[in-house]
Amino acid sequence: MKRNCKLTVFFPSSILSDVPSLAEKSFKIGQIARAASIFRVEGVTVYPDGPNWRRDAKLVYELLSYAETPQYLRKRLFPISPWLRYAGLIPPLRTPHHPLGNEDVRYREGLVIESGANGSVVDIGLKHPVRLGGRLPRNARVTMCLTEAGWIPVRKESVPMYWGYVPAIDERPLHKILADRPGDLVIATSRKGKPLHAVAGELSDALKRSGSVAIFFGSPKEGLHEILHSEGKSLDGLADMVVNIAPNQGSATIRTEEAITITLAIMDFVEGIPLDPSLLVPSGEPTESKRSNTRDG
Amino acid sequence: MKRNCKLTVFFPSSILSDVPSLAEKSFKIGQIARAASIFRVEGVTVYPDGPNWRRDAKLVYELLSYAETPQYLRKRLFPISPWLRYAGLIPPLRTPHHPLGNEDVRYREGLVIESGANGSVVDIGLKHPVRLGGRLPRNARVTMCLTEAGWIPVRKESVPMYWGYVPAIDERPLHKILADRPGDLVIATSRKGKPLHAVAGELSDALKRSGSVAIFFGSPKEGLHEILHSEGKSLDGLADMVVNIAPNQGSATIRTEEAITITLAIMDFVEGIPLDPSLLVPSGEPTESKRSNTRDG
Repeated sequence: MKRNCKLTVFFPSSILSDVPSLAEKSFKIGQIARAASIFRVEGVTVYPDGPNWRRDAKLVYELLSYAETPQYLRKRLFPISPWLRYAGLIPPLRTPHHPLGNEDVRYREGLVIESGANGSVVDIGLKHPVRLGGRLPRNARVTMCLTEAGWIPVRKESVPMYWGYVPAIDERPLHKILADRPGDLVIATSRKGKPLHAVAGELSDALKRSGSVAIFFGSPKEGLHEILHSEGKSLDGLADMVVNIAPNQGSATIRTEEAITITLAIMDFVEGIPLDPSLLVPSGEPTESKRSNTRDG
Repeated sequence: MKRNCKLTVFFPSSILSDVPSLAEKSFKIGQIARAASIFRVEGVTVYPDGPNWRRDAKLVYELLSYAETPQYLRKRLFPISPWLRYAGLIPPLRTPHHPLGNEDVRYREGLVIESGANGSVVDIGLKHPVRLGGRLPRNARVTMCLTEAGWIPVRKESVPMYWGYVPAIDERPLHKILADRPGDLVIATSRKGKPLHAVAGELSDALKRSGSVAIFFGSPKEGLHEILHSEGKSLDGLADMVVNIAPNQGSATIRTEEAITITLAIMDFVEGIPLDPSLLVPSGEPTESKRSNTRDG
């Protein structure tokens, strides 16, 4: 089942810089890929930060892409690369587009392995590849649907279930990406933001009204405020909501991959609450004021 | 800042059996230790399942204990062990009881390294150990507080901030642990449970009323229902709420460490919502009915 509201998460290219080994970096991306799959995120986008951002972003992109590719296409699409040495540590996503073995499914991702005047051949991970009359671009990834006439290529958007995320690198500086409003609703996460529970009604309402939501994360080393500051900009006016996702956290820092899971979990829950936001107890009532002095604790 | 309501999570000893390598097992425990720290969980308890549960539970316990121990006491408390070969992959918890270097803090965990007729010597991770007049048991872990009279041992419960979790193995079968009501509120997580968003009001209310909450998780291979079934029992009447934490999940399975993070994130959020549950839109209103057909999707 697809999500009504399209979600995209944005995080900085430096996300892997706080762990030294490629094994840990691969694990971290595995956690993000899993969270994206569980909560049916459609876009996972890296934005630039730090001096080595191009190289950092490429590694993140490579690992995210590998994770998102069905197992049966990985060998064809990913030649042996030192960057993928520990990619085996990325857990299976178990999404509908990653069927197990010969699982009987109506849709499959495929790769065009031959293409010429006589038509195309598409590997869809079954014993025999599919032969098509039309000429598809060689090495293109295509979504295939099983019809009475056999397997045919279809638009990915037509698949009626969650069909994985699209990894991307946005090379523009963070303030430009934000200013371009990449969602109907733009949410920034920050320790300096409002406690998420204090804006539950507003968030619930906003999620229900929005066709697309973009959620921005900083790194544990530098929050969104700091990253924008180093671009000579501020977050003011660039996000619809600035929220603190774990205002009473017991750990001094929340890692970005943890922040992503936590935020997606709460947003998924809030989206589902059968709640009329106008009926929320106004701020200042006991529950809120009891906690207000620990907002940045 | 301490949590008003004491949280304990329970998960099965087989939790590490779905990944083959010790590196992955260590990572997994690292994720749980981090989630427990972020959401100020006081108890992390393993219950038995599967044929090798004693050995499995011991490994989980060893890794959880290592993660919870302040860095400066680890060498003394954990002799070199093949089980801890990849313990370096467990991320720092950054809790108040894991101060960085010589960070100036009022409370520190210590270890009694000498004890005799002349008093005791306690290593608290500073340049010089602390000498005390009283005789404390050698190798005991003690919580120390800096007073005008110097460092003195105090009860862990008197520390006014989150002070880590207590790892434990409960050797009784799951149904016995449940029947013993290990919390004022006992929550079972299950794919067959009610969508968490559909019981948001009930949960919010129950959390505010409860001094202690026990949350039970199964494994991806066997849910709580299956584990209890293999004990010849059923979950009926053993939990106050049976909830499905991600009813619209895009992945076929949620791993236990993911389920723990997701559940704690939502519970922390719900506990903080300034919400009067009696004002919730009754089930059957548009928001709810729209989703009701995908409950187990």
